[in-house]
Amino acid sequence: MKLWQKDKSALAEVEKFTVGEDRAFDLLLAPFDVLGSIAHVKMLSRVGLLDAGEADLLVQELKHIYATTLDSQFVIREDVEDVHSQVELILTGKLGDAGKKIHSGRSRNDQVLVDIKLFLRYELEVLVREVKDCFDLLQTQSEKYKDHLLPGYTHLQIAMPSSFGLWLGAYAESLADDLLTVQSAYRVANKNPLGSAAGYGSSFPLNRRLTTELLGFEDLNYNVVYAQMGRGKTERIVAQALANVAATLARLAMDVCLYMNQNFGFISFPDELTTGSSIMPHKKNPDVFELIRSYCNQIQALPNEIAMMTVNLPSGYHRDLQLLKTHLFPAFQNLRDCLQMTCLMLSRMQVKEHILEDEKYRYLFSVEAVNRLVLQGVPFRDAYREVGRSIEAGTFSYEGELHHTHEGSIGNLCNDEIRSMMDKVLKGFPFDKVKAALEKLLH
Amino acid sequence: MKLWQKDKSALAEVEKFTVGEDRAFDLLLAPFDVLGSIAHVKMLSRVGLLDAGEADLLVQELKHIYATTLDSQFVIREDVEDVHSQVELILTGKLGDAGKKIHSGRSRNDQVLVDIKLFLRYELEVLVREVKDCFDLLQTQSEKYKDHLLPGYTHLQIAMPSSFGLWLGAYAESLADDLLTVQSAYRVANKNPLGSAAGYGSSFPLNRRLTTELLGFEDLNYNVVYAQMGRGKTERIVAQALANVAATLARLAMDVCLYMNQNFGFISFPDELTTGSSIMPHKKNPDVFELIRSYCNQIQALPNEIAMMTVNLPSGYHRDLQLLKTHLFPAFQNLRDCLQMTCLMLSRMQVKEHILEDEKYRYLFSVEAVNRLVLQGVPFRDAYREVGRSIEAGTFSYEGELHHTHEGSIGNLCNDEIRSMMDKVLKGFPFDKVKAALEKLLH
Amino acid sequence: MKLWQKDKSALAEVEKFTVGEDRAFDLLLAPFDVLGSIAHVKMLSRVGLLDAGEADLLVQELKHIYATTLDSQFVIREDVEDVHSQVELILTGKLGDAGKKIHSGRSRNDQVLVDIKLFLRYELEVLVREVKDCFDLLQTQSEKYKDHLLPGYTHLQIAMPSSFGLWLGAYAESLADDLLTVQSAYRVANKNPLGSAAGYGSSFPLNRRLTTELLGFEDLNYNVVYAQMGRGKTERIVAQALANVAATLARLAMDVCLYMNQNFGFISFPDELTTGSSIMPHKKNPDVFELIRSYCNQIQALPNEIAMMTVNLPSGYHRDLQLLKTHLFPAFQNLRDCLQMTCLMLSRMQVKEHILEDEKYRYLFSVEAVNRLVLQGVPFRDAYREVGRSIEAGTFSYEGELHHTHEGSIGNLCNDEIRSMMDKVLKGFPFDKVKAALEKLLH
Amino acid sequence: MKLWQKDKSALAEVEKFTVGEDRAFDLLLAPFDVLGSIAHVKMLSRVGLLDAGEADLLVQELKHIYATTLDSQFVIREDVEDVHSQVELILTGKLGDAGKKIHSGRSRNDQVLVDIKLFLRYELEVLVREVKDCFDLLQTQSEKYKDHLLPGYTHLQIAMPSSFGLWLGAYAESLADDLLTVQSAYRVANKNPLGSAAGYGSSFPLNRRLTTELLGFEDLNYNVVYAQMGRGKTERIVAQALANVAATLARLAMDVCLYMNQNFGFISFPDELTTGSSIMPHKKNPDVFELIRSYCNQIQALPNEIAMMTVNLPSGYHRDLQLLKTHLFPAFQNLRDCLQMTCLMLSRMQVKEHILEDEKYRYLFSVEAVNRLVLQGVPFRDAYREVGRSIEAGTFSYEGELHHTHEGSIGNLCNDEIRSMMDKVLKGFPFDKVKAALEKLLH
Repeated sequence: MKLWQKDKSALAEVEKFTVGEDRAFDLLLAPFDVLGSIAHVKMLSRVGLLDAGEADLLVQELKHIYATTLDSQFVIREDVEDVHSQVELILTGKLGDAGKKIHSGRSRNDQVLVDIKLFLRYELEVLVREVKDCFDLLQTQSEKYKDHLLPGYTHLQIAMPSSFGLWLGAYAESLADDLLTVQSAYRVANKNPLGSAAGYGSSFPLNRRLTTELLGFEDLNYNVVYAQMGRGKTERIVAQALANVAATLARLAMDVCLYMNQNFGFISFPDELTTGSSIMPHKKNPDVFELIRSYCNQIQALPNEIAMMTVNLPSGYHRDLQLLKTHLFPAFQNLRDCLQMTCLMLSRMQVKEHILEDEKYRYLFSVEAVNRLVLQGVPFRDAYREVGRSIEAGTFSYEGELHHTHEGSIGNLCNDEIRSMMDKVLKGFPFDKVKAALEKLLH
Repeated sequence: MKLWQKDKSALAEVEKFTVGEDRAFDLLLAPFDVLGSIAHVKMLSRVGLLDAGEADLLVQELKHIYATTLDSQFVIREDVEDVHSQVELILTGKLGDAGKKIHSGRSRNDQVLVDIKLFLRYELEVLVREVKDCFDLLQTQSEKYKDHLLPGYTHLQIAMPSSFGLWLGAYAESLADDLLTVQSAYRVANKNPLGSAAGYGSSFPLNRRLTTELLGFEDLNYNVVYAQMGRGKTERIVAQALANVAATLARLAMDVCLYMNQNFGFISFPDELTTGSSIMPHKKNPDVFELIRSYCNQIQALPNEIAMMTVNLPSGYHRDLQLLKTHLFPAFQNLRDCLQMTCLMLSRMQVKEHILEDEKYRYLFSVEAVNRLVLQGVPFRDAYREVGRSIEAGTFSYEGELHHTHEGSIGNLCNDEIRSMMDKVLKGFPFDKVKAALEKLLH
Repeated sequence: MKLWQKDKSALAEVEKFTVGEDRAFDLLLAPFDVLGSIAHVKMLSRVGLLDAGEADLLVQELKHIYATTLDSQFVIREDVEDVHSQVELILTGKLGDAGKKIHSGRSRNDQVLVDIKLFLRYELEVLVREVKDCFDLLQTQSEKYKDHLLPGYTHLQIAMPSSFGLWLGAYAESLADDLLTVQSAYRVANKNPLGSAAGYGSSFPLNRRLTTELLGFEDLNYNVVYAQMGRGKTERIVAQALANVAATLARLAMDVCLYMNQNFGFISFPDELTTGSSIMPHKKNPDVFELIRSYCNQIQALPNEIAMMTVNLPSGYHRDLQLLKTHLFPAFQNLRDCLQMTCLMLSRMQVKEHILEDEKYRYLFSVEAVNRLVLQGVPFRDAYREVGRSIEAGTFSYEGELHHTHEGSIGNLCNDEIRSMMDKVLKGFPFDKVKAALEKLLH
Repeated sequence: MKLWQKDKSALAEVEKFTVGEDRAFDLLLAPFDVLGSIAHVKMLSRVGLLDAGEADLLVQELKHIYATTLDSQFVIREDVEDVHSQVELILTGKLGDAGKKIHSGRSRNDQVLVDIKLFLRYELEVLVREVKDCFDLLQTQSEKYKDHLLPGYTHLQIAMPSSFGLWLGAYAESLADDLLTVQSAYRVANKNPLGSAAGYGSSFPLNRRLTTELLGFEDLNYNVVYAQMGRGKTERIVAQALANVAATLARLAMDVCLYMNQNFGFISFPDELTTGSSIMPHKKNPDVFELIRSYCNQIQALPNEIAMMTVNLPSGYHRDLQLLKTHLFPAFQNLRDCLQMTCLMLSRMQVKEHILEDEKYRYLFSVEAVNRLVLQGVPFRDAYREVGRSIEAGTFSYEGELHHTHEGSIGNLCNDEIRSMMDKVLKGFPFDKVKAALEKLLH
């Protein structure tokens, strides 16, 4: 049953095709749809389009529905098209005419817009918390292993000494930068499209600042045509942010797979965290990291997919947008899983000691030898040539401690400064303001 | 329960993460997995690695399992990791030691390789048949509407006269070209990787030509390292082919949405094939075509996603490959649905008559006027200038019939030639040979 | 001549292939390379690795080279590999041993990193100013045409009344949101990688906070392994920001092409801004907007390309990164051109009047009719059905003024609020701080 | 000067923006443009639209222009818009009215279509020859090193013995499969669009079969609307084929970079083929392979870029298509360079001997041990467990020769069969027919 049905039965195939798997994704939107409706009802009442008594009944019933969306009691009936229709159907069933009035001054277009904005805002907050947990673990492990040296590679060739402290700390700092892009995505998502109706506004005297405040948004999408244009655009920008976090995890996973390889042999994991082979009885495979890499690379392709599905569409709503949910919505769970599995694995990682004592790594110290000459007054280029000649002649050797002291180097990881940088980014997210607004709305 | 388990219990989280939703996709592979096992058993018997009695029992039992995969009776138990393990478990349960012998000379790596090749080969065949149906309908409609004129646009500006015959026939021809790329994908898929084991072959005296023949493959993936490299590559090439078909459908859907727009108003559909609005009572929206466009554009992004997930992985199997199924497998069904919905809609399309009689289309005939002068002996560039001046002066008019006679023009659509082209492409698919081989295998 | 040459002549083909077109792109980096060197020399002097006299000479000479990079006098010799080598060569030629000392404590890896960060930071600033100009023009035109009505479409079907004020104002607001993502890209770019050397730091007592201050960076990339990881990542994030601006322009261009189409006929441009046809004397084509659309869609594909070129590379520098310049660097100029051409065209756009008086647009007012009933007390769903029936019966008509008053609607565009939003974003860019630092450095 | 100019001067900025860098790409099209014109003139003469004398003069002059396009004497004047206009200008300058007649029955739209088809056909042929050379070298090296063993990895973990013969032979076979997709791209490109004019055909009695024959095309793009639709589509399908070849080379380059890494140390190259570091005197970097990888991954992103620039454009020509040249045209040269550099490097590759004698590779033989038990009658799963227990206990050892005999295995590379497969693919390209047609046309 469709609320917009015009007394003609749509062909079953058309209905099956157009609804598709959308009901399943709509369930994820359900709590946010109800929040939007509560704000809308309160606003309609404030501007005199609903009388106070009706509004109170509607809000009360909506709060009840909200509770059912949180404990998985809420269902979208097979014959009901979408979450918006299901909620309206429940209200009309319980409250009669009052239920029929709730759609005044809005359209499914701006309902789904506000649902998606609230959903994305929520998911980004959850993501930020997971990223922070992963950041903390990476910093902890960086400090724990700060004295464990590791060969550093450029061009995948042995280059200069590195350390587990540096390596793990680098990924922590990477996540801090990634959150800058998550934050701009959050700010784009955290603006209120409600009141844009079908994308061209309404002749009702809506109070859009009020719903903005009630839902805890930072600001409005003012222009109603732009509000509608936010569909697809917001998803793309959020997907870019996910892709940035994913890129960091995927690179870490690649490093881990390389370092677990027996030719490197820098790290290992307890057997129960590795996977065997159906044919080779000796295998201990890094499947967890390979799947992290794969999920994350899939997410890296997501912004492009969203662009491909929306490019060259003229302004105004198109049904194409419905399918943006299919790969974006699961990406949040996948990325969370990847963050958690990364933490689980890294917390149990076993690090090999004394790696650099192996003869094959001696040239790692060639720059140290050059620098020693420079400090004795030899111009850099001349020192470089002199050490180069000793390497060619096979006479190169270097004895001595590594003594790197500058900011961000082996001996001075600056993990505290990086933590401050992360804290500064985190402070830019208005999570408290959002929480306070929603608590007030549901009070 | 994992057959490769080394008497240590994997952490539940690791197991949950690594298996993911793979069991659901493995169900789609189940019949093909069993076909591969039948061929493998027959080959093991032929080369003396299984005695004939055991082989017969195994084949008999495998045929029974095959039947269950076709009527949805086959299930992968919650505690079983994948389809390969489930099949082996059933065999071992029923046949004891004989079941344990079936994995000789192969690995899950080449099992899944052969499963996916057989699956893709099958899905491409189904796709080709659906494409052919759509081609036929487009040609039928092209002939039906060959005398109905339509404005032709370049730069979205009114250009020259076109016709519904031309427009519909163009998409038929496009599908014929698309099938050229489907055919090369089919040929890449239709080669046998079985016997490559974990990607480095086996010390058993396998007869890979025999399994190639038994499974109806055109040829082998000879080199076992290349056979393994086919994973990811085959999926990418198949996805490119899907993307080409999808691009044709998406463009057609865009044209339809434009032509349904009231400013164009060239075509319409019965109300029951359109969709209403929750707020605007007058709406009859082309949701079906918007969703075709969206599904097809999503498919257009798929080859890139597959590339992103496999790029820069060194040779040899990686678990990353598992996730290639998640968006590729549903794409087959989605593309089939789009083909069928396109047919359903186009078969009921209503075409407006006498479109070109509208005054605003008169300049469509400016080239006809130029050509008339040319046929009177005026050099083309001079004729062009003369007609241009009459347009500038507002005095342009053109009377007369359109008389386009060359190949592929309004008056000479060449639908028969295009049909021959399509038939020639279709003949290049060895569907009969495949069918005969599988029937023999299952006999 | 390569400064790192080890007295063996590289094969000419290898040299040709590896250098490729990189010298041309390096010219764009030249001024930034020199700025980085000035800061590096001052820092080396401060920490005692260069004596003050040498440092002064080097800085003086570098300032001279800087001037040559600005007036196109600077060239990279055919036999010199890159900009870094060319600068060092000039210094060594003029100052002898002092020139040889300048590479102490750094590597070409962190030189190119800092060059690219400074270049991207500069280009983003120029972009922001261009975006602001385009925003201003869109707002001006929005106000100018705020009373000119236009049909609003959903599903490309006639939906509700819109206006040129709304349409143009929407794109202005879109640019304001886009700049949020430009800002996070700017913040990622505006951190100092200098001192990370080859990606593993240095045993010299470098003062990285000093170079950070001298170059006007907001902060350091602390961890040296992360600093190196910023290559590729920064480019990708910057490309995402460009893609967001490009998406806005491309959609606007699509709307324009549609509105210029004779079936819509909402806008036109003076003949000298349109393009003709080689065959059709009547054509006035919107080539400018088609090329804006095409450049912008090409830019929309850029973040994906960068991801494809860097995905699955382990940490540490790889030569692959060199080619990231080839499509990213021209994208800045292309996007600037698109912004300027959009402004030029829109400033001369001619808008059709009284569009909605055409009979075919009457159903645009169906929601007005529903709302009028609602305001008379009819529940929304019942009003919807009543108007729907009048449309079905062919009796629908609507008389009356549009009276949309809420925020962002036809009658209340909120262009001032949108301007405040834009100003707030602009204040978040530390352009003044950067300018002051660079002036001090070059003083 | 534009041939379509309507006596109004276009604003200089518009002209600069719309022409862009197109003249440079048009130079690459010049010889093909002239070929198309010769065929068009001959056809016009045959159907009576040009008299024989004029046609002869035109053909003679066009042959002269053709010669200038081959020896770089042909230039497009600054004030001339494109190659088509330049050719027409020369003809008109020399032959007067006859030159003005040449554009009869065609448009720049189908001129550029036929130019691009001829160009792509030519470039694909050159590519096929380069791929064949690389294939030959890979096979030669595969045979040369067929007895040199190498560890085989799965999950980047030591798995089973492989060989340089297998490894190199795999990439040869991969190229053979890639050429299947190049062939379908060639077939799509090798159809004649000439005569489609602006995309809607012509009222002239053109003989399109004749130009098809004269230009050596396999067939026509019959339907003129489809012929125009081939623009963008052909480029995308060709780019897919390039991407497939590129994917093979990029993976090979990744393997090489890994195998050159000192922890693997399987292969090395003469110093003059490697690259040094500006800071580390010991470095011998694999820059050539890193750049091959990067160019090839850039090419892997190209089909997506083309799709992004053409998706959702309605049928009919759009100026957007012009920019498809900018990244596709250079891709041919880049891919050729990558093929040649791969050959150069691999021909000088130095292979380490006795790699598997290193203790760390002993578990490579675990499957051999299992198989030995199987051949003694132990069921596979039981043998697997037994060997697994010996590995756990640290008592595993394996002595004995590798004896892999099946098709495509270490001991039976099947390089001859793979060569036959390649030859069969090559026979599918009608290069001889094309060559004969063009020689006849230019005779």
